Amino acid sequence: MIQEKDRSIVLKRIIKISGEELAEHTDAIAVEEPLEISISVLNADSPISNKNISITMRTPGHDSDLALGFLFTEGITIGPHQISKVILGENSVNVQLNNSEEIDLSKLERHFYTSSSCGVCGKASIEALKTVCRLPSSPSDFTIEKNLIKSFPGILQQKQNIFNDTGGIHAAALFNTQGQLINVREDVGRHNALDKLIGQSLQQGQLPLNGHLLFLSGRASFELIQKAAMAGIRFIMAVGAPSSLAVELALEHNITLIGFLNETRYNIYAGANRIKI
Amino acid sequence: MIQEKDRSIVLKRIIKISGEELAEHTDAIAVEEPLEISISVLNADSPISNKNISITMRTPGHDSDLALGFLFTEGITIGPHQISKVILGENSVNVQLNNSEEIDLSKLERHFYTSSSCGVCGKASIEALKTVCRLPSSPSDFTIEKNLIKSFPGILQQKQNIFNDTGGIHAAALFNTQGQLINVREDVGRHNALDKLIGQSLQQGQLPLNGHLLFLSGRASFELIQKAAMAGIRFIMAVGAPSSLAVELALEHNITLIGFLNETRYNIYAGANRIKI
Repeated sequence: MIQEKDRSIVLKRIIKISGEELAEHTDAIAVEEPLEISISVLNADSPISNKNISITMRTPGHDSDLALGFLFTEGITIGPHQISKVILGENSVNVQLNNSEEIDLSKLERHFYTSSSCGVCGKASIEALKTVCRLPSSPSDFTIEKNLIKSFPGILQQKQNIFNDTGGIHAAALFNTQGQLINVREDVGRHNALDKLIGQSLQQGQLPLNGHLLFLSGRASFELIQKAAMAGIRFIMAVGAPSSLAVELALEHNITLIGFLNETRYNIYAGANRIKI
Repeated sequence: MIQEKDRSIVLKRIIKISGEELAEHTDAIAVEEPLEISISVLNADSPISNKNISITMRTPGHDSDLALGFLFTEGITIGPHQISKVILGENSVNVQLNNSEEIDLSKLERHFYTSSSCGVCGKASIEALKTVCRLPSSPSDFTIEKNLIKSFPGILQQKQNIFNDTGGIHAAALFNTQGQLINVREDVGRHNALDKLIGQSLQQGQLPLNGHLLFLSGRASFELIQKAAMAGIRFIMAVGAPSSLAVELALEHNITLIGFLNETRYNIYAGANRIKI
């Protein structure tokens, strides 16, 4: 019997139709609720008090990871040393920053113009798409044995708690180069799952993640590759298809990109040099 | 042999690993590119010239449908009579509006604050989430035979051109109550696929769509239910899971919501009264 837990799952009465059979049933559904992310900057010259940055539809849980990961992968903050305090509400996170001089407020303003499913690094024009992003250069000098890669979906499946209950949620997971699972985060929004994963690593002082592998449960879009790149990740595996711009970004930034990964097969779209064949 | 067509597909050389076999291969990949949506309002009192509204990562094609659908489902425009001209660039659409008095510029301003994957109807606060949306009340007095519903995935599969080539794209489709496919749109972003579908209906003067059924190839999030509701749609079927907020919105607005639909089974989350059992 599935139980409601951690505000991430809710139970609802539904009607199931299977073949000619019809039955009432209690079903577990992934929770989606808005999270308001705001920042406060304490600075005598230009005090900013509780400035709203974004509302994202997310699955409750790990909200501070989500907010800190979002601010970092969008280029608004550059590291944990800027964060003074995180104040959690039920559906809000206020991040207090202790040094406004390093905060790129122009990125913040521009972010109002872009949209988060785009998340194009706060860019204000299409031309600047790939150049404005402050991507860290972090060489990743490791190789992964080609069959080890096929083991990751199976490892993750056992850890996707909310997915296993609801079938309606994305996961982002971090592995080390020995193939051990380091962390996994789930969310109705795949960009949120990745922000939560990166936000936790940031809080633990583990950035950049250039010695780690990223696993994505869905498709690989430009936005996800860009967020991963911001965190220094150079090895990305997705269960679904990559988009054209995801492949281009991976090629440009020397990122290994794998798609259509399951326990028997996968495609290599970029960075095959890191796979021991 | 798959060919590049309509800027929606690009061919790339990849390495395929299947079991112990390794082969170089030409793969079709769904194109993802940014589209900048802007509006111009001609008004002597407060002329707005080319105001940027959104950048969305989309699959090129049907860009004017996308822009008009986006402006409508976000509550910025209220109907086709406001649209004077649509100017298409390679990765931009400028929509010229002919009557600024009916344009809700506050929604436009607020939209800068929300994010498009959220798309919460331009709301500026979480409390207003479900109340601020100007949802049309459009009764949908029809019933659909329960086994007809299972036929929709098969009908759509034959029409998903880009999906069949790339495996990496979402679709939104409109059916009539007799089960005939009216239109289908594909995009790397599921919200874009739906905006394209609604934008085309708007251009053809077919809104509200309260006599139609909507089919979604992925999961059903709050944002998609809300966009559909804005267009008057009251019958939604998704191949994937719904989120908690999607179910709540459907219940509140008397929308039939079906999830986990395939050719043998589905779940009814809301509005079972429209299904003839």
